Amino acid sequence: MVELESPEELSYGPDGLLPVIVQDATTKDVLMLAYADSEAVRRTIDTKTTWFWSRSRRTYWNKGASSGNTQAVVEIRYDCDADALLVLVDPAGPACHTGERSCFFRSLESNKPPN
Amino acid sequence: MVELESPEELSYGPDGLLPVIVQDATTKDVLMLAYADSEAVRRTIDTKTTWFWSRSRRTYWNKGASSGNTQAVVEIRYDCDADALLVLVDPAGPACHTGERSCFFRSLESNKPPN
Repeated sequence: MVELESPEELSYGPDGLLPVIVQDATTKDVLMLAYADSEAVRRTIDTKTTWFWSRSRRTYWNKGASSGNTQAVVEIRYDCDADALLVLVDPAGPACHTGERSCFFRSLESNKPPN
Repeated sequence: MVELESPEELSYGPDGLLPVIVQDATTKDVLMLAYADSEAVRRTIDTKTTWFWSRSRRTYWNKGASSGNTQAVVEIRYDCDADALLVLVDPAGPACHTGERSCFFRSLESNKPPN
């Protein structure tokens, strides 16, 4: 169990990243999972919008900056090992690039829609 | 966007793992984040309880096997890139080894308890 004062004290992986779960603060739906380094966490705190590190594009990424589907940060939680974040947000639009509200819209071994 | 028939078709990282978010199917609280390889996902499907790969102990891990705090799997979802899982569960007890219901019980830059 870890008590933290700053994002630099979180436990990042060998690649300098940790996973960030984004959850709708109102509906409690899990919207997406992305990755952040300490700078992205710092930007998330400072701007109160979600910032990530894109592993494929190797660049910082402010969710919704181009699409308009921003995520206003309500609260940032960290887990017992301080190696994962849960960010509760008020989303301005769909989280998924497919237009779905959540990126987790398909079920394994099931054809039924999740909601 | 990826349509899947089996856990082997999910997109695993260079270490053979993907992150697994565990969410309470009833309260929708996010309980924990852990990692799984294709064998752990297969065991989760087959046993309808959560299986992970422990990166620190380098072994498979059936959540609750020793503590009794098992997680009965209600549904397994995968995200648009098929590189993260969301498992909805009915938990038999606390998810966290600290005894907290969720591992995400602390807030960054806040002293208030999350719930």
